Amino acid sequence: MNIYDKLRERGIEIGDRVRVLRDNEEICGVLMPRYSIYEGENLLVIKLDNGYNVGIEVDENTKVDLVSKRERIVFKEEKVLFDKSKPKVSVLSTGGTIASRVDYKTGAVYPSLRTEDLIKMIPEIEGLVYLDAKQIMSKFSEDMKKSDWSLIAREVYRSMKDSYGVIVLHGTDTMSYSASALAFSIRNKNVPIIFVGSQRSSDRPSTDSYFNIKASIITALKAPFAESVVVMHGETSDSYALVHRGVKVRKMHTSRRDAFQTINDYPIAKVHVDRMELEIVGRIIRYRSNEEPVLMDKFEEKVALIKFYPGFDEGILDYFLEKKYKGIVIEGTGLGHVSNDIIPKIKELIDNGMIVTMTSQCLFGRIDMKVYSTGRLLLKAGVLPSKDMLPETAYVKLSWLLGNFKDLEEVKRLYLENLEGEINERLSLDMYPKWITDQ
Amino acid sequence: MNIYDKLRERGIEIGDRVRVLRDNEEICGVLMPRYSIYEGENLLVIKLDNGYNVGIEVDENTKVDLVSKRERIVFKEEKVLFDKSKPKVSVLSTGGTIASRVDYKTGAVYPSLRTEDLIKMIPEIEGLVYLDAKQIMSKFSEDMKKSDWSLIAREVYRSMKDSYGVIVLHGTDTMSYSASALAFSIRNKNVPIIFVGSQRSSDRPSTDSYFNIKASIITALKAPFAESVVVMHGETSDSYALVHRGVKVRKMHTSRRDAFQTINDYPIAKVHVDRMELEIVGRIIRYRSNEEPVLMDKFEEKVALIKFYPGFDEGILDYFLEKKYKGIVIEGTGLGHVSNDIIPKIKELIDNGMIVTMTSQCLFGRIDMKVYSTGRLLLKAGVLPSKDMLPETAYVKLSWLLGNFKDLEEVKRLYLENLEGEINERLSLDMYPKWITDQ
Repeated sequence: MNIYDKLRERGIEIGDRVRVLRDNEEICGVLMPRYSIYEGENLLVIKLDNGYNVGIEVDENTKVDLVSKRERIVFKEEKVLFDKSKPKVSVLSTGGTIASRVDYKTGAVYPSLRTEDLIKMIPEIEGLVYLDAKQIMSKFSEDMKKSDWSLIAREVYRSMKDSYGVIVLHGTDTMSYSASALAFSIRNKNVPIIFVGSQRSSDRPSTDSYFNIKASIITALKAPFAESVVVMHGETSDSYALVHRGVKVRKMHTSRRDAFQTINDYPIAKVHVDRMELEIVGRIIRYRSNEEPVLMDKFEEKVALIKFYPGFDEGILDYFLEKKYKGIVIEGTGLGHVSNDIIPKIKELIDNGMIVTMTSQCLFGRIDMKVYSTGRLLLKAGVLPSKDMLPETAYVKLSWLLGNFKDLEEVKRLYLENLEGEINERLSLDMYPKWITDQ
Repeated sequence: MNIYDKLRERGIEIGDRVRVLRDNEEICGVLMPRYSIYEGENLLVIKLDNGYNVGIEVDENTKVDLVSKRERIVFKEEKVLFDKSKPKVSVLSTGGTIASRVDYKTGAVYPSLRTEDLIKMIPEIEGLVYLDAKQIMSKFSEDMKKSDWSLIAREVYRSMKDSYGVIVLHGTDTMSYSASALAFSIRNKNVPIIFVGSQRSSDRPSTDSYFNIKASIITALKAPFAESVVVMHGETSDSYALVHRGVKVRKMHTSRRDAFQTINDYPIAKVHVDRMELEIVGRIIRYRSNEEPVLMDKFEEKVALIKFYPGFDEGILDYFLEKKYKGIVIEGTGLGHVSNDIIPKIKELIDNGMIVTMTSQCLFGRIDMKVYSTGRLLLKAGVLPSKDMLPETAYVKLSWLLGNFKDLEEVKRLYLENLEGEINERLSLDMYPKWITDQ
C-alpha cells in the first residue's frame, strides 16, 4: 500500500493542508498528487506556500499530520450574462500552463478554462467585450505537432468570421512556432490572432495568467493590426505586456515572465494593462480590414531543422535523404556556415530535389554568405540564405511553403520573400539588446 | 579565356585600382581574386572603398580601366628585437579572420600572422612583452573538429610551461566551442588561455583585429585568473573589450563586433584598451598559480547535440543508437522538455548505455525538470538536467567526459558538477539583458 493510500485511511486527502515531520525538520503545505505512477511507493509531494512542489521520501520515522481539510472548490452555478452587442472576442484554449488548474478533488490538472472562469478572473472586462471561449485541444505545447498547427489554424479561421480578435491560449514552450504557423497559414488576416501563455500556473501566487490574458483581451479590442502575435509580460513587474510579431519572437528564458522577446525587430506594441491602453512601438505589416481570410493549413511533415556544430555527423544528412525529406533548415554558425567537408553532401541533397536553407545559431543579425568562401560555396551548391529569419520561423515557413505549393521554384521564390514580417530588411543597432555590462 | 586573363594581358592585375563602366554606372575599387574556380568566366570581383566586395558580370558593353597600380607590399627585413627579460606571451594562430590578410600579389588569403606583423600592428606593446607567435593550423573555425580541439589543447599545454599567458587566434564561428574545450581539457591551469578573433578582416577599415589582439595581450599580462576565456569587443565603439569565461560565452550576432556575450553569468573582466587596464567585473573560478597543468585532451567523437522542435523525427534517435553513440545532449524547449511521445525512445537509448542530457534552446535561465510532468518523466527515464549550462558547453563537456573517463557513473557525477564555472548556481535578475523596449 503506498503512502497516499495509507494517508487516505487516516482521512488525509489530496488538497488537504499537512505538516510533515522528519529528522527534526518540519514542512507545511498542501498535499499534491504524485508526479506519475512511476514514483516510488513512499514519495509524498507537498506544495509549499511559495508555490513550489517538494518530493519527500517517507520512512518509518516520518510523521504526517493533518493541519486543515482542503477548501471545497464549488463553482457557483451563476449564469454569466453576455452582452452580444459588445465586440466578440474568441478565446481558443489549446492547453498549457495558462489553461490549467489543479483540481484538488481528483488530483488532476484541468487543462481547460471556461468563459465563466475568465470573466471571474478579470471582472473589469465584463461589459466591455463578449467573450466566447472554446477548448479546441488540451496539450502541453512541447507535444504540439504540425497537425496541431493545422487544427489551430482551422479553428482560428472559423472564429475569425465573426470575431473582433481571436485569442489562443497556448503553452509557452513552442508558442512561437505555433504563432509563426498561424502567421503563414491564414492569408489576408482581417483581425488579430493573439497567442498568450503563462510562465507560472494560476494556482501559484506569482502567476502571470491573469495579467497576460487581460493584456491579450486589450490587444484584441484595441489593436489596429491584423497579424499573428504573441502577448506576454514585458518585464518582471506587472507594468506592461509586449505584443511581439509571431514570426520574430522567441522564448529566451526558461522561467522569467518576460521570457518572450522580439529578435531582429521592434515589438509591435506595448500594452499598458492598468490603463487598458495599447501603444504602438514598432511597425505594422497588416492592418484590420474587410478582406476575406484565406486558409492554407497544410504543413509538410518531411522538413527538418538541423543545428550544425563542430563534430556534426554527416550521416544525419543521409538519414534525411533516405527518408525522402523535402526540406532542411540548417542552423549554421556565424554568417551562415557549416564545415566545408559536408558541402558536397548538402549539394547531393539539393541535387536530389531537396530545398536546403541556412539560418544562424547566433539568432541576432543577418545571414551573409558572400563574405567568406565557405558561404559562397554553400550558395553555389544551392543553399538558400534566410536573411535575418529566426531558425524556428524559417523551419515553420519552409514546412508551410512545401505543404501548400507544388512548384519548387515558387517555394524558393516565396521563401526568400518577406511574407509576414519574418524578414526585416532594416536591422538597426538598437535591435541588439543591452547586455550585462552596459546596464 | 576568362576576364582575369584578358585584363592581365592589358597589364591590369589583382590588387590594382580599377574603374568599371557598365550601363552608365561607374564602380571604382580594387580588383580582387575570384571567389572560387566555380565562378563564371566573366565575373569580376571588386572591393569597394567601404570594404565590401561586389561581383560584376562583364559583357561586351562593360569597360574596365586601370586607375592606379597596386601598392607593393614589401615587408622590411628588419630584425625585431625581443627582450627576453619581459614576460613571454605565446600567440598560437589557428586561422580565421583575425589571422588572415589578402596578398594582392597572389590573390590568396594569408591565414597566418607573424610575430613581426603583430608588433608592427601594435607598436605600443614593444618593450612590454616578449611575444612568441606560432601558427599551429590554418582553418576557418567552421571547419574545426574535435581532433582540432585536442591539437590546440596540446599546443597550449606545451606553451603554458614558460608563458605568462597563451593567446589563441581563432575564427569566431565556433570559438566558444573551442574555448570550452580548452577549459575542460587542461586541468589545473596556471596561466590564462585567451581566445581572440575578429569579426572584420584586417584589410577592412572597420577591422577589429588590432583592438582585440591588443586587449588579449593586456589580458595575458594583467589577468589574475588562469581560465580559458574569450576576449572580444565589448560594444561597437573602441572603448573596451570584455573577457568572457569560455564555458559561458556565445556568439550572439552574425556580424557585430560585440557579438560575443556572456549568458547566465557576468563577464569576468573589462579591458580598457586605451589605458591598458584590466578591471575585474565578475567572479574568478581559478587564479594564477604554480600548479602543474594536467593535459586531458581526448574528446569522444560519438556524442551529438540535437535540437528538439515540433515535428522532430524520432528516427534521428534511432540513427544515433545504431551508430553506437555514447552521449546525446538535447536542446529542448522551455525548462527542459521534449514531446512526451519520444520519451520511451529516449529511455531506450539510456537503457542501452547512452548518456542523455537536457539543455534549453531558451539559452537564458536554468533547466528545471521537476515543474511539469514531461520533465519528471524525462528525469525518471534517466535524462540528466544540465542546470544553466549552454547547449554548446554541455556538448563539449559531455564529449570531454566520455573521452577521458571510463566509468559512466563518474561521467554522470562530473557532468552535474561545476568544473570550470560552466554552472552558475546564483543566477541574478540582471544577468538577463535589457531588451529593445527597456533601453
